[in-house]
Amino acid sequence: MNTKDTFFDLNLDSFRYTGREPISLNKWDTEIDSLYESNEEYEELLRLTVTEISDLQERMYAHNRYGLLAVFQARDAAGKDGTIQRVFSGVNPAGIRVHSFKQPSSQELERDFMWRCLVRLPERGTIGVFNRSYYEEVLAVKVHPKILHSQYLPDEWMDSEKIWKRRYKDIRNVEKYLHRNGFPTVKFFLHVSKEEQGKRLISRIKNESKNWKFNRQDVEERGYWNQYTNAYEEAIGKTATEKLPWYIIPADDKKNMRLIVAKIMLEELKNLKTSYPQSDPEEQKVLQDMIAVIEQQNKE
Amino acid sequence: MNTKDTFFDLNLDSFRYTGREPISLNKWDTEIDSLYESNEEYEELLRLTVTEISDLQERMYAHNRYGLLAVFQARDAAGKDGTIQRVFSGVNPAGIRVHSFKQPSSQELERDFMWRCLVRLPERGTIGVFNRSYYEEVLAVKVHPKILHSQYLPDEWMDSEKIWKRRYKDIRNVEKYLHRNGFPTVKFFLHVSKEEQGKRLISRIKNESKNWKFNRQDVEERGYWNQYTNAYEEAIGKTATEKLPWYIIPADDKKNMRLIVAKIMLEELKNLKTSYPQSDPEEQKVLQDMIAVIEQQNKE
Repeated sequence: MNTKDTFFDLNLDSFRYTGREPISLNKWDTEIDSLYESNEEYEELLRLTVTEISDLQERMYAHNRYGLLAVFQARDAAGKDGTIQRVFSGVNPAGIRVHSFKQPSSQELERDFMWRCLVRLPERGTIGVFNRSYYEEVLAVKVHPKILHSQYLPDEWMDSEKIWKRRYKDIRNVEKYLHRNGFPTVKFFLHVSKEEQGKRLISRIKNESKNWKFNRQDVEERGYWNQYTNAYEEAIGKTATEKLPWYIIPADDKKNMRLIVAKIMLEELKNLKTSYPQSDPEEQKVLQDMIAVIEQQNKE
Repeated sequence: MNTKDTFFDLNLDSFRYTGREPISLNKWDTEIDSLYESNEEYEELLRLTVTEISDLQERMYAHNRYGLLAVFQARDAAGKDGTIQRVFSGVNPAGIRVHSFKQPSSQELERDFMWRCLVRLPERGTIGVFNRSYYEEVLAVKVHPKILHSQYLPDEWMDSEKIWKRRYKDIRNVEKYLHRNGFPTVKFFLHVSKEEQGKRLISRIKNESKNWKFNRQDVEERGYWNQYTNAYEEAIGKTATEKLPWYIIPADDKKNMRLIVAKIMLEELKNLKTSYPQSDPEEQKVLQDMIAVIEQQNKE
């Protein structure tokens, strides 16, 4: 089997986590056998997949019933930015909305914790891409619980034991609600190893042209590696369902990662029951009559 | 000279209108000699230009001082959607925000006429693309002045003579304000001939798979061809300046049009004084020290 077949036959089940049993991230690969043999082949496979994504997004737009939300969560330097860039460049930019969520602004903290994401959900016919999301509220905030105290929550909802379970449930319920309204959420965890992350951070330091991408806080956060592992396992474990699973993507090879993400996006778009609107015979008749009107206008 | 040189040497001045003398659209070409010899060459020239746009957008993002707003105005079927799709596909979708403005919603009518566009302006480092814009308020609304009566304006600001001049001035001033804040506006009028527009509308009717793109109202609006010509001439004439000109793009050949638009976007990005941030020696020292921290973390 050549690598093209490896890619086209790739079984996405091996990346899908539906929450049936507890998740242990160290049992999930951060690296798999290469899906491409050369850079040219990688580019070709990606291009083919992105073209199909683009076609299906157009059909989804014409159909105007569904919208798709792709959520990307990962540790720093796992490759969120680059994956989003490569998988969605080539799709009609009018059909894509990428939002990067940084630290919440003081205005955003005046709202419930999902608000800033909910107001940026995709419209029907479009793909919304969240680079980080409301999941940070059960990840970064859980690892640094002191952040909670800047969120202006009423005391009776600050219970340090129950707050996370309630947030998982809130997230699950909101995603279920969106799904029932035509907006399924596709959730990606880009799973990078500690060694590979270290290499990438060091390369941002050593390569001066990459310095602007380097954030000292990333190194600080790296000191909480295990706490983040626990937080991811719990968040993913409690919010993955049969219908709205999480995808755990091996992230140590960026090209493999992009190919897998692209393929999953393509499959998710294929799963939507979209079609081009058909005009009925009566409608067709009216349309045909308009040709004469247009031709008459040419003479005016 | 081969066509590649024709494209690379193309003088953009011939499309630039700076408002020095009144504009008469029938003196502006809707068609020019082909800038490409084959479809392959067109794809190649576009790809090269879009790649450069993409690189400059990344630099603009890293620099974080400027944002660029591209406004597309045109008659129906002139090719706004396709031009936006082809010129900006391939640029990092995280750096592009496309907004299509339809009829204002009742909520939007509760605001001043530019509000819905202003809240969708690009952030620093990104390219905002408006498919239609506040210019509709001096185009469609001017051709159909009865729309004004649904805009809840105070009586004293409804003066039917002065209202347009005031709107041109408001637009000019807002664009100047944005420019001074780091956000120049690039204004495109996609200039299509009546015959070519007719052909395209008819093809949307005859080609059933394109029916969903056909809007009967487009034919109605076509009946107001000359009124629109006048409205465009006045709007463009009153809002073009040396620093913020309009570009009048021959639109009868879609591929030529896209190549010209891409080249103008590229030139506009080149004109911004962007650069990658440099870290100073002191900063570099701190960064180098972090390598040891990262390596230590690997052992934890």
